[in-house]
Amino acid sequence: MQGLHIPQRTIMTPGPVEVHPRVRQAMSNRMLGQFDPAFTSIMDETMERIRQAFQTKNKWAFPVDGTSRAGIEAVMCSLIEPGDKVLIPIFGRFGHLMAEIAERSGAEVFRMHAEWGTVFDPEDVIAEIKKISPKIVGMIHGDTSTGRVQPLEAIGKACRSEDVLLVVDAVATITGMDFKTDDWCIDAVIGGTQKCLSVPSGLAPLTYNDRVEKVIAERKNIEQGLVQRERKPNPRRIHSNYFDLTQLQDYWSESRLNHHTEATHMIYGLHEGLQVVLEEGLEERFNRHRYHEQALTAGLEAMGLKLFGDPASKLTTVTCITIPEGIDGDQVRDFLLQQFGIEIASSFGPLQGKIWRIGTMGYSCRQGNVLQVLMGLEASLIYAGAAVHKGEAARAALDIYTKQIQPSLA
Amino acid sequence: MQGLHIPQRTIMTPGPVEVHPRVRQAMSNRMLGQFDPAFTSIMDETMERIRQAFQTKNKWAFPVDGTSRAGIEAVMCSLIEPGDKVLIPIFGRFGHLMAEIAERSGAEVFRMHAEWGTVFDPEDVIAEIKKISPKIVGMIHGDTSTGRVQPLEAIGKACRSEDVLLVVDAVATITGMDFKTDDWCIDAVIGGTQKCLSVPSGLAPLTYNDRVEKVIAERKNIEQGLVQRERKPNPRRIHSNYFDLTQLQDYWSESRLNHHTEATHMIYGLHEGLQVVLEEGLEERFNRHRYHEQALTAGLEAMGLKLFGDPASKLTTVTCITIPEGIDGDQVRDFLLQQFGIEIASSFGPLQGKIWRIGTMGYSCRQGNVLQVLMGLEASLIYAGAAVHKGEAARAALDIYTKQIQPSLA
Repeated sequence: MQGLHIPQRTIMTPGPVEVHPRVRQAMSNRMLGQFDPAFTSIMDETMERIRQAFQTKNKWAFPVDGTSRAGIEAVMCSLIEPGDKVLIPIFGRFGHLMAEIAERSGAEVFRMHAEWGTVFDPEDVIAEIKKISPKIVGMIHGDTSTGRVQPLEAIGKACRSEDVLLVVDAVATITGMDFKTDDWCIDAVIGGTQKCLSVPSGLAPLTYNDRVEKVIAERKNIEQGLVQRERKPNPRRIHSNYFDLTQLQDYWSESRLNHHTEATHMIYGLHEGLQVVLEEGLEERFNRHRYHEQALTAGLEAMGLKLFGDPASKLTTVTCITIPEGIDGDQVRDFLLQQFGIEIASSFGPLQGKIWRIGTMGYSCRQGNVLQVLMGLEASLIYAGAAVHKGEAARAALDIYTKQIQPSLA
Repeated sequence: MQGLHIPQRTIMTPGPVEVHPRVRQAMSNRMLGQFDPAFTSIMDETMERIRQAFQTKNKWAFPVDGTSRAGIEAVMCSLIEPGDKVLIPIFGRFGHLMAEIAERSGAEVFRMHAEWGTVFDPEDVIAEIKKISPKIVGMIHGDTSTGRVQPLEAIGKACRSEDVLLVVDAVATITGMDFKTDDWCIDAVIGGTQKCLSVPSGLAPLTYNDRVEKVIAERKNIEQGLVQRERKPNPRRIHSNYFDLTQLQDYWSESRLNHHTEATHMIYGLHEGLQVVLEEGLEERFNRHRYHEQALTAGLEAMGLKLFGDPASKLTTVTCITIPEGIDGDQVRDFLLQQFGIEIASSFGPLQGKIWRIGTMGYSCRQGNVLQVLMGLEASLIYAGAAVHKGEAARAALDIYTKQIQPSLA
């Protein structure tokens, strides 16, 4: 039987990214029972740290035990009842995903589309909200499939004044780019662990406010196996047990009403990952992401590569590159992984085979990795016969690294 | 800010139990990308090991990224369409849970009840199957809430001949007690990681056969964001995206169609945990669980405590004890945790406050732990003023430990 063989990699995809060494250490700890006070205090601390990372004073801030889309589904299926109107502006793959999740939850979904590589003018979204009067607007903050970030503040304020709930997928940006849950009037936000947080995939930290809590409270249902007497189910109960936020709330509250068995070691990792983030400082962390993105893009452009998408809406955490004519994108990616141990990503749907995506997220977002990916990509492109400006990429990045003060890495 | 503080515990609950040291080590490894061949080969090996642990030749054997109930919900919601008849025989809390999950998925649920502490005569279940002709029968193999195990072979064979699908929750028994997926004609089985496998909670390994695959294949739906052209959704698509087994199948197949981002480090843990199990050997492992259960129950009875439930259907992995008259069960449990660092469990619903539950599962199922829990419980009971036979518990357990050959611990 094969033991685990984990080769060393330089991971420069838009997630999962390299895990912070302190997080890996945290995950090798011994087990604690789920109701052991030593563990429930870790749960409480994790909630407080999620609040800080999401810049919110919301009471409810906890992870769902599943990958990021589990968090999106938990919020959507807890809010949506059959026939509810949901508006989803789509500017990449993850808008489609949110629309699909809403539709499967029984919503009547209204879609808006922006060309992949661009985002929406908030005013267009606001006009559509006024036209449709949906119960919920679902938006992606950063869509990694196109490398774009959608401004949300004006949309959030319009939703608040129109009494519409705004649910945001911030998986690609949380703790990597500024995200002000409360100031932007976002009612529910879902983050991911495996991107800027540099914790392995498997938890979806989220937060929601009392507007959301009020809506889902009407659908509350307690499991028959937990009560002494027979009780009638709530006819409006949420169609998922696992994703029922009213049950998850009870589990994460002082009453600790039994639901699932918390994923202890993932919580250890999240707890430590959030501590690393908060020790660095949110502003400092956002600056660090911008700084290395600058070095990366300077290098790529110096190499003669063309960045994909509207520069005005570029994510600092993801850089998309148009694959040069005549080059097989997947072949270059495979070569880069096999020969250099460096991983970058392709994209989805209409962009499949047309762009590469390089992530600069969390612990992967550091000078050594940026220089490695630039030099590895250059060498791989030269080997594949592409016309690149030889030797320029690292020099352009080093111009930034030697001349600008570098934010320290937590 | 608080760093992680993980005190040493002796965990003797029915899960989560102590994690095998090799598993903790495995989980501290570096990240690998989800489509890195070094990782996909770990995924393939994990599938093969799940097959072996579940004693099946099924093609599909993979974990759902969530806790055990996530696996149950994935199977149920992928199979159930509105109005489908589902029969759930309930003999403890987890039967209620399965019924609730089925009902939330839109099934017409038929319940049978056995008194908590007993299980069903298979003939009674078979008669009910013939009467109701359900599409699915959902059964719990071992219900930890009452410490009972339900014989399944006759029910499985009857379901096969009646062309009914049999879905089994084997969370409490898998790799701790014999479970023959194929020989017993079980169509879908869900296991848990945090019990006999001694891996942290957070994955639900499951397997299902081609009878299940055929039913869910009709509901297949591919995400819009993954395809080049607009396509109409399948009107029968599964109401959950996260739990859609047809999508999970594609992700775990050679096509590796993108769905979620696999929980890499949990997979590292599961891969290693299954290796530990298979190196020990399934039979040897079942024997070890029986051996330590014998020592535990001998000790408890020598102390003068009364075991709860029908001995004929007792789980070897869970021992239930009637809380002696006049003793506050929760106070004793808290005392045991605070003073000795030993954790045992209470129970749910009608048994809350009436029984304690002691688990002997996986890595926690070893001589040192059994002796510790016996001595700690005795001392705590004496301290609480209970009338116990002093000094008899350890002696009775040691009679077994010194006189019978002990299976070695992997």
